[in-house]
Amino acid sequence: MTDYRKYIQTIEDFPKPGIRFYDISPLLGSGTVFASAIADMSKPLRDQVNKIVGFDARGFVFGAAMALELGVGFVMLRKPGKLPGTIESVNYGLEYGTNTLEMQTDAIGSGDRVVLVDDVIATGGTARAGIELVRRVGGEVVAFSALLDLPALGGSQSISKLNVPVHSLLRISNEG
Amino acid sequence: MTDYRKYIQTIEDFPKPGIRFYDISPLLGSGTVFASAIADMSKPLRDQVNKIVGFDARGFVFGAAMALELGVGFVMLRKPGKLPGTIESVNYGLEYGTNTLEMQTDAIGSGDRVVLVDDVIATGGTARAGIELVRRVGGEVVAFSALLDLPALGGSQSISKLNVPVHSLLRISNEG
Repeated sequence: MTDYRKYIQTIEDFPKPGIRFYDISPLLGSGTVFASAIADMSKPLRDQVNKIVGFDARGFVFGAAMALELGVGFVMLRKPGKLPGTIESVNYGLEYGTNTLEMQTDAIGSGDRVVLVDDVIATGGTARAGIELVRRVGGEVVAFSALLDLPALGGSQSISKLNVPVHSLLRISNEG
Repeated sequence: MTDYRKYIQTIEDFPKPGIRFYDISPLLGSGTVFASAIADMSKPLRDQVNKIVGFDARGFVFGAAMALELGVGFVMLRKPGKLPGTIESVNYGLEYGTNTLEMQTDAIGSGDRVVLVDDVIATGGTARAGIELVRRVGGEVVAFSALLDLPALGGSQSISKLNVPVHSLLRISNEG
C-alpha cells in the first residue's frame, strides 16, 4: 500500500497555539496518490453502502470522490444556514468551541446503508453529530471512513462505542 | 445527455429574501446522475489539464470527483484561516458582501495547466478571485468548469473577458 504518511504535512500551532494540524494538501495534489487513497478507502465498502455522507468541507473531497468510485449518491453535512428545505440539525462540542451540523431531512431514509466520510478523526465530535443525524432520519450507519485517525484524541474509540466500525488508511498515535 | 435540470431544485428567498437558490442535492443524491455529470464535465478536459482547483465548499464535491475521473491532482481554494503554510490571498466582492479566498502558494506552479471547478456560476466574483490566485503563482488557467451557469447574473461573461473558456453542463437564463 502507498505510504500515505509521506504526503501529510505536520503543522504545529495551527489554527491556534497548541494545536497540531495535519495538512493533507500534498496527498490531494498528486493525482496518483489521491486516486490510490480513494481506491483504498472505497475497497471495503464496495456493494456495502448506497449513500456516502461527507462533512463540510474536507470531507466533501474524499466523500464525493468515493461516491464516484463506488457509483453511489453523495449527501452533504453542512455548517448552519447553508442547506435549504427541511433540515435536521444537531449541536455538538468540538476541539475549539461548539458548532452545529445540518442535513436535509429527505437526503437519507430508512433502508439506506450509509458510510460517513471525513479527512481526519480527532476528538470525534463532528463524527458523532453526523452519525446522530443519519440515524435520526432512519439511515443505517455501516461505517465511518477517514484518511487519517488520531486515536490519542479519542474520536475513533467514541465512534466505535456507537457500534459504528471505523476505517482509516493511516493512524498516527503519537509523534512526540 | 442526461436532463440535469430535473435534478436541481429551485428555492426562492434562500439564503435571504430576493435570492433564488439552486439546490444541487438531488443530483448528488443519485449515484448514476452524479457519475454522469462528472463524466460530462470531465470529457472536454481529458489530457488538457494536470491540476483541478476547487472552491470551498461545493466546488470540492465536483472538483475532487473530476480529479479522480481525470487522474490529476486536486487543490483547495478556501475561506480565510483554513489553510496552513505560505498563503496567497485575494479579497473580492460577492452577491451578499465581501470575502477572502486563499490558496497555498506552492500548490500550483508555472507549467501547471489548471481548470477551476465550482457548482454554480452566478456573479462570478469568487471565480475571478480564483483565476487571479492561480495566475499569481504562475499557473495557466485552461478553463472554468461548473455544473450550472446563470448567465443573466453576468459571471460567465466576466470570466470569458479574462480569456478563460467557460464550460457548463446546464445554463438557466431566466425562469421568470
